Amino acid sequence: MDGSGTPASRLEAQFAFLNEADRLKSVLRATTLVDGSRVENSGEHSWHLALYALVLADHAAAGVDINRVIRMLLIHDLVEIDVGDVPIHSANGLAHGSATTMAAEQRAADRIFGLLPSDLRDDLRAMWQEFEAAETPDAIFAKSLDRVQPVMANLMSGGGTWTTYNVTADQLETRVGTKIARGAPALWDWVKVKAAAFFL
Amino acid sequence: MDGSGTPASRLEAQFAFLNEADRLKSVLRATTLVDGSRVENSGEHSWHLALYALVLADHAAAGVDINRVIRMLLIHDLVEIDVGDVPIHSANGLAHGSATTMAAEQRAADRIFGLLPSDLRDDLRAMWQEFEAAETPDAIFAKSLDRVQPVMANLMSGGGTWTTYNVTADQLETRVGTKIARGAPALWDWVKVKAAAFFL
Ligand SMILES: [Ca+2]
Repeated sequence: MDGSGTPASRLEAQFAFLNEADRLKSVLRATTLVDGSRVENSGEHSWHLALYALVLADHAAAGVDINRVIRMLLIHDLVEIDVGDVPIHSANGLAHGSATTMAAEQRAADRIFGLLPSDLRDDLRAMWQEFEAAETPDAIFAKSLDRVQPVMANLMSGGGTWTTYNVTADQLETRVGTKIARGAPALWDWVKVKAAAFFL
Repeated sequence: MDGSGTPASRLEAQFAFLNEADRLKSVLRATTLVDGSRVENSGEHSWHLALYALVLADHAAAGVDINRVIRMLLIHDLVEIDVGDVPIHSANGLAHGSATTMAAEQRAADRIFGLLPSDLRDDLRAMWQEFEAAETPDAIFAKSLDRVQPVMANLMSGGGTWTTYNVTADQLETRVGTKIARGAPALWDWVKVKAAAFFL
């Protein structure tokens, strides 16, 4: 509890963060639910991804710590409370990961993780940064899952964001497939066959 | 991968489960979001609870494995895909945990976890049963978080389900407070003071 003040002030800070995090349930994504009934929000998306990690752990490379991957996925989208979701296929694939978006996400991370007691703030901020950098085995696997889940939603719902944004098979390979394959090659090999049928 | 068939049939089973789990995003609870704008669904609720475990880990008793608590919370409500959410204060507090509800939840667990490869099916089914039994330190802490999160939503949104179901301070203590205090006594001491102001 280093740097965290009295127990009561620590609890106030923990709940300031948890109550603020609730707003992620109101951030809408481009991807729909599997049944196509409505678009997904980033809170339920984060749950689904953590469940992906739990269930698909056998596809992680040796040395990946699935418990860390789950934690990373639980917090990976919190910056969207301030910045919103930037769909991977929007603006012809150019908006996602732009310098402007990344700078706004850094400010959002400062503000949102800054609500926490300092020990938790530093831990979770660093874990979010690790996810964004996509260099460690844990982050690379987490990113693979973050890319494969919308592919499954699109397949199940009959096209989804591929239709919305007129995505081609080549664009799917470049923007999505390479990222899935980097962390979970067998998973992309398997999903790719299913996706190919859609782009015929 | 004992008992799980070929890699491709294992993946089919893993995704049959993950695609079915998506339906939890369409199960509506009685509790609203913190901003009161709409009711919460059980998918985003499960995410929020896993985040609660991550952030409030210092309130767990010695020996609690937070990574197991997080996994447990990710899967704890999946049976609601078949059974729906049974609000704790509905039917004057008598519907939640009734024999009829519990039998239906067992059938739901058989069906939903039964979609998984056998190793994962057995692991996750047992973990769900452990949560329901609320006897191990991990399950007791997980249950505390499951009870405290709606209290915070009600406090933040100005009454919520306490208003809907005409809940009294005594009913809150019996149905909710004792369960929170069992796994996280300091947390209930702190929240109780805030809740008391509502029931004045
Ligand atoms: Ca629950």
